[in-house]
Amino acid sequence: MAKQNIFDYETFFNGYRKLRENPWSANELFEKPALFSLLPGLEGKKILDLGCGFGDHCTEYVRRGAASVTGIDISERMLDAARRENADPRITYIRMPMEDIGGLGGPFDLAVSSLAIHYVEDFRSLVKNVHGLLAAGGLFVFSQEHPMNSCFNGGERWTKDGNGVKLFANIALYSVDGERESGWFVDRVKKYHRTFSTIINTLIEEGFAIERIAEPVPTEEQMRLYPSHADLMHRPDFLLVRAKKD
Amino acid sequence: MAKQNIFDYETFFNGYRKLRENPWSANELFEKPALFSLLPGLEGKKILDLGCGFGDHCTEYVRRGAASVTGIDISERMLDAARRENADPRITYIRMPMEDIGGLGGPFDLAVSSLAIHYVEDFRSLVKNVHGLLAAGGLFVFSQEHPMNSCFNGGERWTKDGNGVKLFANIALYSVDGERESGWFVDRVKKYHRTFSTIINTLIEEGFAIERIAEPVPTEEQMRLYPSHADLMHRPDFLLVRAKKD
Repeated sequence: MAKQNIFDYETFFNGYRKLRENPWSANELFEKPALFSLLPGLEGKKILDLGCGFGDHCTEYVRRGAASVTGIDISERMLDAARRENADPRITYIRMPMEDIGGLGGPFDLAVSSLAIHYVEDFRSLVKNVHGLLAAGGLFVFSQEHPMNSCFNGGERWTKDGNGVKLFANIALYSVDGERESGWFVDRVKKYHRTFSTIINTLIEEGFAIERIAEPVPTEEQMRLYPSHADLMHRPDFLLVRAKKD
Repeated sequence: MAKQNIFDYETFFNGYRKLRENPWSANELFEKPALFSLLPGLEGKKILDLGCGFGDHCTEYVRRGAASVTGIDISERMLDAARRENADPRITYIRMPMEDIGGLGGPFDLAVSSLAIHYVEDFRSLVKNVHGLLAAGGLFVFSQEHPMNSCFNGGERWTKDGNGVKLFANIALYSVDGERESGWFVDRVKKYHRTFSTIINTLIEEGFAIERIAEPVPTEEQMRLYPSHADLMHRPDFLLVRAKKD
């Protein structure tokens, strides 16, 4: 299985960097607060960040008292930026595809992943590995593209009225797990769609108890300030899960 | 809160009866097998059937060895049919809205509900009541309209091509929990949409552990025999949950 490393392509890297620096992006407004709301107290915790990217979250975890953070990412370019911009003696960055974490030393108290898991083909194997790396009672908290979003397989994403107002999110092939390609900064980024039931059942089958799910949407205040995100009321962009090692 | 009893209207009753007698309906082909696949062994079990309708499931439960089945339904017409067609000394039919089950005597080993919960406005209160009626370790297994289906709030359900082929399921207001009205045999049937996260989190918050989720779709054989159900690959009709009293 080839591990996709789209983040080392120049075009993708620059486009992604710009997106992540936009304070009004859906990531900043909805995904990040939802992810942090699902985290436990981090004081003294040993944390694994899967797909750490530029390392911003790693820095925030140590700021919140984590004893150590191991950030892994497949992209050397992103880790270069992380080592420059988010260096801390308590943070270790390792270049490693998420598929290979079985070799890391554990146990960790918390494994966390922000918007990276939908790039991984073999979800069950990832979940098994995370389970093996966690201490008893350890938490796995992750965000990913919402299944109603990750199922996208081409065509128009929205049905709009004559004025361009989004009437319906267009959903196709939701029930078919597997690879999707989408043009995101570059022509072809491979993502892997999985239904809700695949995600939840795999976690349970591999020894996790589901503690909480989130599908974040704008508050009324956010709707007023960022009306372009109102489409999340039709179809959320993100799904988040907090699961506990049984 | 008025409890909706649409099933006692003549038009609705007859239309519904016909639907349930169709062996190629989505209910018979997908929902019912998925529901039964989530049930535990029923030998000696004390079972509560929420929204039992014509009592077909109650009969199947005693056939599978249940010690007793209490079937409740809000519709006297449906219970009349149940008492005629699905009578058994081990089955007790009670006319009662699902909202009022708190007054029943327990404990039950299993509470099961087939396609009725989306008529109930106050899901949390229902879950609380079911939790109170179950023995320790008891199971709550239910099917309901899939959230991608129950969110429907008018307009066209599908975007079709020029030949009438379904290209996209049209999704709107998924993220907004609450009442929906839809024309199903009669002009206005009230249903209550809840997101996936509302359903799962409410169960967890009220003391259930999620054991399994199902979003049934046709097998290849079924796709060949009943091609009109292929649209379930775009958007499932049903969501099923098995939850255990912690």
